Amino acid sequence: MQQEYTARAERIMQRIQQLAAISDDPDGVTRTFGTPAFVAGRDLVQSWLEAAGLPTRTDGIGNLRARLESPNPDAKTFVLASHIDTVVNAGKFDGPLGVLMGLDLLENLLAQQVALPFHIELIAFSDEEGVRFHTTYLGSKVVTGAFDPALLGRCDAAGISLDQALVAMGGDASTLALDAIPAAEWLGYFELHIEQGPVLWERNVPVALVTAIAGQQRVELTFRGMAGHAGTVPMNMRQDALCAAAEFVLTAEQFAQVHGRGLVATVGKLAISHSASNVIPGEVTCSLDLRSPDEAQLAQAYDYLRSHAEAVAGHRNVALDWNLVQKTAPVTCDAGLNALLAQAIAASGYETIALVSGAGHDAVPVSFVAPATMMFIRCYKGISHNPLENVELADLAAAVAVADQFITLLRTQNPTR
Amino acid sequence: MQQEYTARAERIMQRIQQLAAISDDPDGVTRTFGTPAFVAGRDLVQSWLEAAGLPTRTDGIGNLRARLESPNPDAKTFVLASHIDTVVNAGKFDGPLGVLMGLDLLENLLAQQVALPFHIELIAFSDEEGVRFHTTYLGSKVVTGAFDPALLGRCDAAGISLDQALVAMGGDASTLALDAIPAAEWLGYFELHIEQGPVLWERNVPVALVTAIAGQQRVELTFRGMAGHAGTVPMNMRQDALCAAAEFVLTAEQFAQVHGRGLVATVGKLAISHSASNVIPGEVTCSLDLRSPDEAQLAQAYDYLRSHAEAVAGHRNVALDWNLVQKTAPVTCDAGLNALLAQAIAASGYETIALVSGAGHDAVPVSFVAPATMMFIRCYKGISHNPLENVELADLAAAVAVADQFITLLRTQNPTR
Repeated sequence: MQQEYTARAERIMQRIQQLAAISDDPDGVTRTFGTPAFVAGRDLVQSWLEAAGLPTRTDGIGNLRARLESPNPDAKTFVLASHIDTVVNAGKFDGPLGVLMGLDLLENLLAQQVALPFHIELIAFSDEEGVRFHTTYLGSKVVTGAFDPALLGRCDAAGISLDQALVAMGGDASTLALDAIPAAEWLGYFELHIEQGPVLWERNVPVALVTAIAGQQRVELTFRGMAGHAGTVPMNMRQDALCAAAEFVLTAEQFAQVHGRGLVATVGKLAISHSASNVIPGEVTCSLDLRSPDEAQLAQAYDYLRSHAEAVAGHRNVALDWNLVQKTAPVTCDAGLNALLAQAIAASGYETIALVSGAGHDAVPVSFVAPATMMFIRCYKGISHNPLENVELADLAAAVAVADQFITLLRTQNPTR
Repeated sequence: MQQEYTARAERIMQRIQQLAAISDDPDGVTRTFGTPAFVAGRDLVQSWLEAAGLPTRTDGIGNLRARLESPNPDAKTFVLASHIDTVVNAGKFDGPLGVLMGLDLLENLLAQQVALPFHIELIAFSDEEGVRFHTTYLGSKVVTGAFDPALLGRCDAAGISLDQALVAMGGDASTLALDAIPAAEWLGYFELHIEQGPVLWERNVPVALVTAIAGQQRVELTFRGMAGHAGTVPMNMRQDALCAAAEFVLTAEQFAQVHGRGLVATVGKLAISHSASNVIPGEVTCSLDLRSPDEAQLAQAYDYLRSHAEAVAGHRNVALDWNLVQKTAPVTCDAGLNALLAQAIAASGYETIALVSGAGHDAVPVSFVAPATMMFIRCYKGISHNPLENVELADLAAAVAVADQFITLLRTQNPTR
């Protein structure tokens, strides 16, 4: 068996490499939504699906969809999916890994001539990263019926609207409503994805089940003090906006360290207006990215850090602008699917690690209409969105074994919801 | 007398406004070294000096120089000076105030037909700010014989060398050595300048004597951690370069606050490489500007903050690059001249405040060859290098009274050094 999993992992890896060779940027991997490289990459994946004997189509938003039908026409549909769009100068695994592992699972089911108690739809989502139109999950929102048609008028950096982009890539905005899988037909959703974090790498375990996808609050804050000459304004007469921001940065870090349970807090951007080495910073703008699987904890962290920022501004005599720019609720993965996944991991002989996803995934919009879960696969040092992104063959083989086992459990335990 | 000082202050203010109308930038005040506006501004000041009956010349580096001779040809020379170059988008007072107050003092001496026991040379230095060639004090270094001819090959942003710039503004690099006042001929140096800091503004006192010009150490440091996804890297696995920098920012502030005695510490620049709100900062570069009138204290602060930065880098598992990019020793103003200046301030009825200059001035190079001191004049909120820079007429009149008194004390107490 191990040998077979390794052989399957090798084929998946070959396909990942072939797909990664298609890029808008000759030196890296860049296939953002709807570009020529995106379409060429999708065509390649479609050719593999067709070669496997699966009927395929591309839908109005550009998703590539293949189905493996149950003999029972009234069966529900279980969706295997991930995305095939990338960020700019991406790695090879973020997205394609899940799609090409899904293809491998279907090829295996076809080879075994299994009679499925449910239909399986394999979907390669067209836009998860949101690079081009600054809105994530375009593909999965269409499939879940949550797409907002107002987005069709949104334009990319070149002034091309989403509507026009769909036409250029062979899509069709007029069919989007028909591309949704009706809520009643969903059996569940399973996404395989690299962890994009360092936990599995550090613990040297190939896979993990995902119990939740963190909610997120993103804030942009500005401290406005008074610029001044670094040599002439005494320390006790300063209104240094950078010192205020530095207090905030450290408090955000400390709050998340102390409160734990999946809470993370990051100040990723910090910019001083008109900065110079001999000028006391008068205005500093920074970001705050707060994530937690626990909505109450997220709200508590948000409130505490806002109060803290106000207190810092107060005692330093600087003004504070605080703007919440994004708020996403946490998503809890389906307990039933996770129980199966834990069983599959244990049956395959691996330690069962449960992780919270700090990054968003297509499982987020899907979770609003169907039971959804994910499995994470160990990646090199947790590095992602970077050409250094990598997955070891042994980990991929382990993931194939677990995914196989999961599908087997799913169909033999015949869940009917 | 008060009425007369006010009238003199009004004339100085008028000249300051007229000079400020000459600018390379039509919307602001910009007369950097050697530009057409600089030359036009110098011509205007020269016309006022000539109109006052003073012989003038421009020297090789572009300084404008006028002399009021003593009847004693063997007398030493006392220099009144400031600069007439500006930063970009400057205020009207930084530099010109000292030159035009000096002109007023000479006009007053001429009107009174005073027989001076020393020559007075009034100098409008051509380059104090160092904007164009990134080297300060070009004018005063020539006058003190400290000019380094290697600088003649240095080029500005347009590729014009200092040598070429001198020719274009009517200067002459070949005479620079002859433009120095020999060390033996110096009696002393007195510069009037706006404070460029908020102390006099807050204390509502028009002038201060300057006891020292702070030494400065400027450092550029980089913390190199590990960039990562803000959602997927747990708090305890991060190597956040911004958190390291934030600790450093606050420690620098706190060290200066605690140690006082004129020590100031400023982080004026801080930049995150490849920053994004959802990326843990991997690399942060910042500046440190340390100033103190006390060389030992400056060295102690430098050593402490370097050790602290290393300790922060160590406990956070990030790398540190530490580069000293500038080091200037503190300058102590001449005690004898300061005693006269304190006497003049007291005699004029003002509180005697002694300040350390945190900003550099032409008095720094002069102090290496002659007894030098400065008087600061209150400016609006301490704002400088900014179009909001302002001096109130009443403060200017007070400064005229004190400066008059100072010159009177200087010539009547007949200092012979």
